[in-house]
Amino acid sequence: MRFLVTNDDGIYAPGIKALAQTLNAFGEVIIIAPDQERSGVGHGITVHHPLRVEKVELFPEVRECYMVDGTPADCVKIAIQGLDIQPDMVVSGINLGANLGTDVLYSGTVSAAIEGVLLGVPSLAISVCKNISYLPTATYFLTRLLFELKTPLPKDGLLNVNVPALRQDEVKGILATKLGVRLYKNEFVKRLDPQGKAYYWMKGVPYAPASESDHDHVAIEQGYVSVTPIQFDLTYHALFSELRDSLQ
Amino acid sequence: MRFLVTNDDGIYAPGIKALAQTLNAFGEVIIIAPDQERSGVGHGITVHHPLRVEKVELFPEVRECYMVDGTPADCVKIAIQGLDIQPDMVVSGINLGANLGTDVLYSGTVSAAIEGVLLGVPSLAISVCKNISYLPTATYFLTRLLFELKTPLPKDGLLNVNVPALRQDEVKGILATKLGVRLYKNEFVKRLDPQGKAYYWMKGVPYAPASESDHDHVAIEQGYVSVTPIQFDLTYHALFSELRDSLQ
Repeated sequence: MRFLVTNDDGIYAPGIKALAQTLNAFGEVIIIAPDQERSGVGHGITVHHPLRVEKVELFPEVRECYMVDGTPADCVKIAIQGLDIQPDMVVSGINLGANLGTDVLYSGTVSAAIEGVLLGVPSLAISVCKNISYLPTATYFLTRLLFELKTPLPKDGLLNVNVPALRQDEVKGILATKLGVRLYKNEFVKRLDPQGKAYYWMKGVPYAPASESDHDHVAIEQGYVSVTPIQFDLTYHALFSELRDSLQ
Repeated sequence: MRFLVTNDDGIYAPGIKALAQTLNAFGEVIIIAPDQERSGVGHGITVHHPLRVEKVELFPEVRECYMVDGTPADCVKIAIQGLDIQPDMVVSGINLGANLGTDVLYSGTVSAAIEGVLLGVPSLAISVCKNISYLPTATYFLTRLLFELKTPLPKDGLLNVNVPALRQDEVKGILATKLGVRLYKNEFVKRLDPQGKAYYWMKGVPYAPASESDHDHVAIEQGYVSVTPIQFDLTYHALFSELRDSLQ
């Protein structure tokens, strides 16, 4: 079993190290990750400048380790299509901070796993709420998930895993969930620079306009690990027929 | 009717000018667009540096025009949540180059329309194949679409419009379509810099692994304007139940 490991917090982040160490028990690990934090890059790819790929020796326990001056999606693309690495699974994370509901549309962590699936490789994204102190909870439940999962990972979708900010023994279990909707309120803080010119900081306060019991953020709030299967046929099928009639 | 207009080719691109002029016939136009080309940024948002918003006078025919040093999604977010602009519709484009099938996952043009819908505003993204010479075809069919559409634009989805590289009188009509799958082959070109260090250019040659007659790229190849309704519940519902059983 060969794992291709990446993230969007950058190659020096503690989450990717914890992830690589965990997967090492299951097979061979190859890391390819951005040279710096790329949070909020969404499913970006780099087309206007060339990418540099540098082989580095950061983690003695992994087979190979590469650093890229691009996005998480770039990393997966160039590993598989540029460096001819053939992984059995792409694993992205462990992100510090949840990727729940509508967040996945902006998430570099999830975009790397989407890229994996687009290139035909089963993929998983994993994030932990809050901060680094809950990484051990995340690695423990990732291990359990890899052992327990009776369904093989899908070829045309990925698993998005979120781990609550709890100690391992406080977590209530693992739940299959659906993506909820998370929106953000009051997002821009306007400031003036010393020259009196305005600039704006984005400030996200998440809220869920409508929650259902099987939504991912509800599972997290209730103390469960959330596992959401994700696909990316974005066609609005219910509207398709209506639109077809309308355009005739 | 107030239109919020943006793009990912940047505020100086010919496509946004053509778009603004077209929409001007239907109502008030406010432009807010990136200060430079942001193609391939996907649904990125800027969280690590503040955003600058500059009011500019570029197009005498529009009510207001703003330039932002951010992504297309940033532009829509800051317009609605930072500048308190309340549009009736967000329109993104006209992008030079198609946004078909899986492309929409990477598309800055489409991400701006997604952001519009997330903020509760009906939205439309429009792209034209090939180059600037087919912009008149795009504006003609956008006008027709705005007149002909009997279905009101959905609140929870958007329309992704692609226009073929044909003269207006060569186009066969407007078709409602579903997103197809477009993948890219042989994507990385390796080169050596004068110091002998490698760098990689991404080079996309699109192909469709499986086409169905109602897929967007098929409509374009056959000479139709393609209109795809898009939603973004990415939950893989078919896999959800299976996974739930597996994790019990």
